[in-house]
Amino acid sequence: MDSYPSFLLENAVNQLSKLPGVGKKSALRLALHLLKQDKEQVNDFAQSILLLKNEVKYCKVCKNISDSDVCQICSNPSRDASTICVVETIKEVMLVEETQQYKGLYHVLGGVISPMDGVKPSDLEIESLVKRVAEGGIKEIIFALSPTMEGDTTSYYIARKLKDYDVKITTIARGIAVGDELQYSDSLTLGRSILDRQVYHV
Amino acid sequence: MDSYPSFLLENAVNQLSKLPGVGKKSALRLALHLLKQDKEQVNDFAQSILLLKNEVKYCKVCKNISDSDVCQICSNPSRDASTICVVETIKEVMLVEETQQYKGLYHVLGGVISPMDGVKPSDLEIESLVKRVAEGGIKEIIFALSPTMEGDTTSYYIARKLKDYDVKITTIARGIAVGDELQYSDSLTLGRSILDRQVYHV
Repeated sequence: MDSYPSFLLENAVNQLSKLPGVGKKSALRLALHLLKQDKEQVNDFAQSILLLKNEVKYCKVCKNISDSDVCQICSNPSRDASTICVVETIKEVMLVEETQQYKGLYHVLGGVISPMDGVKPSDLEIESLVKRVAEGGIKEIIFALSPTMEGDTTSYYIARKLKDYDVKITTIARGIAVGDELQYSDSLTLGRSILDRQVYHV
Repeated sequence: MDSYPSFLLENAVNQLSKLPGVGKKSALRLALHLLKQDKEQVNDFAQSILLLKNEVKYCKVCKNISDSDVCQICSNPSRDASTICVVETIKEVMLVEETQQYKGLYHVLGGVISPMDGVKPSDLEIESLVKRVAEGGIKEIIFALSPTMEGDTTSYYIARKLKDYDVKITTIARGIAVGDELQYSDSLTLGRSILDRQVYHV
């Protein structure tokens, strides 16, 4: 599919195919879809992306994306400001919020330490987290990172940085997922869930 | 995932999820991907879509999309201007071009007749095709439409419209696809391929 009848189409297809998970064929389908829409709709589409990129702010406290200098979570007086949940990206903020089980604040690292991908601690929002703890008033830090080598390394690195502060450090529970069949669980997770067994309440 | 930390993000996700095959979760992934790119890259991305929609032209002869008033196929003197291949969309123009087996011109209908989807003959570029034939110089019309009820209806409708003109009307061969296993072919296609059998050249 390299014989584009129009340079403008070829250019749009090239741009669309840079999106993750979009190949040349899907990109052509998206471009032809956009061509079929009204001018106004396509304009709104493009503007929403430009606005997102050019106007979005990052909360100066937790680094979550926000429409104002301090995000709606950090500026909400009914949230528990003494607890910080440390997450990788804003996607995890949204996931934790959706559980409705957490009323504290967040800290968005912007990634995890990964020498393979060239991500160093200084590329992440770790210093700003240490600063928040140093300023006082924080009682607990909860790590909600992926249970991968990189996530564990990051938790360990941050925990070491915080060891001189009077703050409780916890990590979200690892275990068998709700609804999972025990027979299909991996032995590492099953082993961990036995070690971390909970008192059964009747 | 309805607790967006930013209205700008929510808006961009809503717009991206209007793309065909993109749900809310994928749209969020795309939005976060775009947020991570440079401003210039995101700007180029959005501009390529705006340019496509606002600047692209349609060839006044064959209705294919084009950067000029007459597309590069119609304006190419080495193509056979006496043969017109009738296709549904520009996607099929690109597919036929890719085969490098066709040296005539095209006519892009912009769809097929489909009462179920509310597509009437007058919504398609049929009158303009009849006009091209009426102007003379056309020896053959090749239907390259999908072998569906709608495609067949459209071919039949156009053939009726052209019956008073001295033009040969053909349709692309139906048969077993190259590389297909005969045992898995459907009986309609197999039956058609027996009726349309070709002399075997040795």
